[in-house]
Amino acid sequence: MAAADTPTILERDSSVYVLDQTRLPGQATMLRLATLEDAAHAIRVMQVRGAPLIGAIAAYGVALGLADDAGDARLDYVIAALAATRPTAVNLHWALARMERVLRESAPATRREIAWREARAIAAEDKAANSAIGVHGMPLLQARQKGKHPIQVMTHCNAGRLATVEHGTALAPVYAAHTAGLPVHVWVSETRPRNQGLLTAWELAEAGVPHTLIADNAAGLLLMQGKVDLVIVGADRIAANGDTANKVGTYLKALAARAHEVPFYVAAPLSTIDFACPSGKEIPIEERSGEELGAGSVPVANPAFDVTPAALITGIISERGVAAAGNLEQWRT
Amino acid sequence: MAAADTPTILERDSSVYVLDQTRLPGQATMLRLATLEDAAHAIRVMQVRGAPLIGAIAAYGVALGLADDAGDARLDYVIAALAATRPTAVNLHWALARMERVLRESAPATRREIAWREARAIAAEDKAANSAIGVHGMPLLQARQKGKHPIQVMTHCNAGRLATVEHGTALAPVYAAHTAGLPVHVWVSETRPRNQGLLTAWELAEAGVPHTLIADNAAGLLLMQGKVDLVIVGADRIAANGDTANKVGTYLKALAARAHEVPFYVAAPLSTIDFACPSGKEIPIEERSGEELGAGSVPVANPAFDVTPAALITGIISERGVAAAGNLEQWRT
Repeated sequence: MAAADTPTILERDSSVYVLDQTRLPGQATMLRLATLEDAAHAIRVMQVRGAPLIGAIAAYGVALGLADDAGDARLDYVIAALAATRPTAVNLHWALARMERVLRESAPATRREIAWREARAIAAEDKAANSAIGVHGMPLLQARQKGKHPIQVMTHCNAGRLATVEHGTALAPVYAAHTAGLPVHVWVSETRPRNQGLLTAWELAEAGVPHTLIADNAAGLLLMQGKVDLVIVGADRIAANGDTANKVGTYLKALAARAHEVPFYVAAPLSTIDFACPSGKEIPIEERSGEELGAGSVPVANPAFDVTPAALITGIISERGVAAAGNLEQWRT
Repeated sequence: MAAADTPTILERDSSVYVLDQTRLPGQATMLRLATLEDAAHAIRVMQVRGAPLIGAIAAYGVALGLADDAGDARLDYVIAALAATRPTAVNLHWALARMERVLRESAPATRREIAWREARAIAAEDKAANSAIGVHGMPLLQARQKGKHPIQVMTHCNAGRLATVEHGTALAPVYAAHTAGLPVHVWVSETRPRNQGLLTAWELAEAGVPHTLIADNAAGLLLMQGKVDLVIVGADRIAANGDTANKVGTYLKALAARAHEVPFYVAAPLSTIDFACPSGKEIPIEERSGEELGAGSVPVANPAFDVTPAALITGIISERGVAAAGNLEQWRT
């Protein structure tokens, strides 16, 4: 990504500024988060979204929530307030657990300073992890190249730079390929009901990567027609057995990819793997407001995520490399 | 359906009035079609939609297009103008072929009168066929009933009364079950990009059938969670081998139904079966304007249909009964 691009997150004068994703693609506006409440609200209403970015914002949210001499009660309160914002993405809980660990053992007078330092470290590590995902994932795209035709990648939702501190997860290999001069074209699913596909189209346009928006419903036809060389998606939580929760609709793409023998990859930093969660059955699925469908008084169900079984996943790409979904144990730290 | 419901089509004073589906669910407005051009326009812009209803409107469109003494050249022109409106739904071409057959062998002076009579017959036969689909389909719902729980039906797009002259196709068994006092609940997919799910929700509400709207993306999760007892969809064209073109997104639901061993039925009158079309590969897929996605200047692909292979279809319900998708030959007339 060019350095001139609007960053997803920026620290300045003891505040955090985030790119307000509810205003994209229309407006690229930086929103100031000055308090714990600002950070929790931004996560809850999806002004910031994407599992890795949520993790970083939650870490900064802890820093924003701690006064100069924060005792254990305040620390508990801050962690709980941020943990309650969204249930599915595990990076949020991973980041909060990490913050709590370093802060709990620190003297109250030092906690504020340490929280800022640790949040910065989490953000920096996210950038580095995603950059590595690009390096490890690019050869998988290259392997699917047929002559001089563009490599046809299908993705879902937004797992690009907007979902992270930088580089993206699913789109990191796409950006790496584009930068290396490989021809690549991305099929972008609209991703109802929140239309994060428009975010993906926006950032791909910004980066100069050819792309085409489709209704979520069109994914099966495109796979049947041989118009997709591989599918790459991000993840909100990967269970120990490789089952993967990601934006609702991911599972349908995985089924269609399998039906047409097209590789289906999940790209995510290690912080997305929840080794404490044995399988997809134990992953909580967030139910969001039916108002997101904009259907007035019609009764609505609006689960925000679904679970793709490990058996449908060709491989998981992390900062450590590529692993079979059923073989994540090697990455346990 | 209660007789008081707004009809989808009404003949009066040598004009045809249709329920303008582009204004639903907000407004139930009858639109006057007075000319061939009105009828062709209504089909093209989807003021009327649904394969069976399109067939009936096309038949009336022929009547509207013929003057008192219409020669062969005019007849050719009228048929061609209507045939060019939409490519995938075969009922349109079936109705036009039928109109042409009776009109071609009639004296020009009698053609106008005969055209009105034949259009009325096509409309009446559609009602009767759909009513029979309800009768044949209801036991399939009943077979999936578990105790006193509502039978959980998933559908896609609108294959209800709004897609037909009356009764609906996929929803005919649902209405038959509801009328018979069986508890039934329908999962209604939004059906991007044209949101025909809102039409389905509107007519189910009108009929008092419990229903819940979902994003198209949520279908896989609901099937995985065991919240669906059977899937029933309509069809725009069924090939001789049983491969079925229907609104884009149908195929993804069929894959998910199969993955969870949930029956997947297609309900359609015989006029939807194209015995001249050997398989799904030969069915033309309409590509509609990218503007339907409402994404401004983003490049868009917008196929309106997809093809579900016969192997994923548990059975096809027509006015003649229920047949395996691979065994339609018995219905060839």
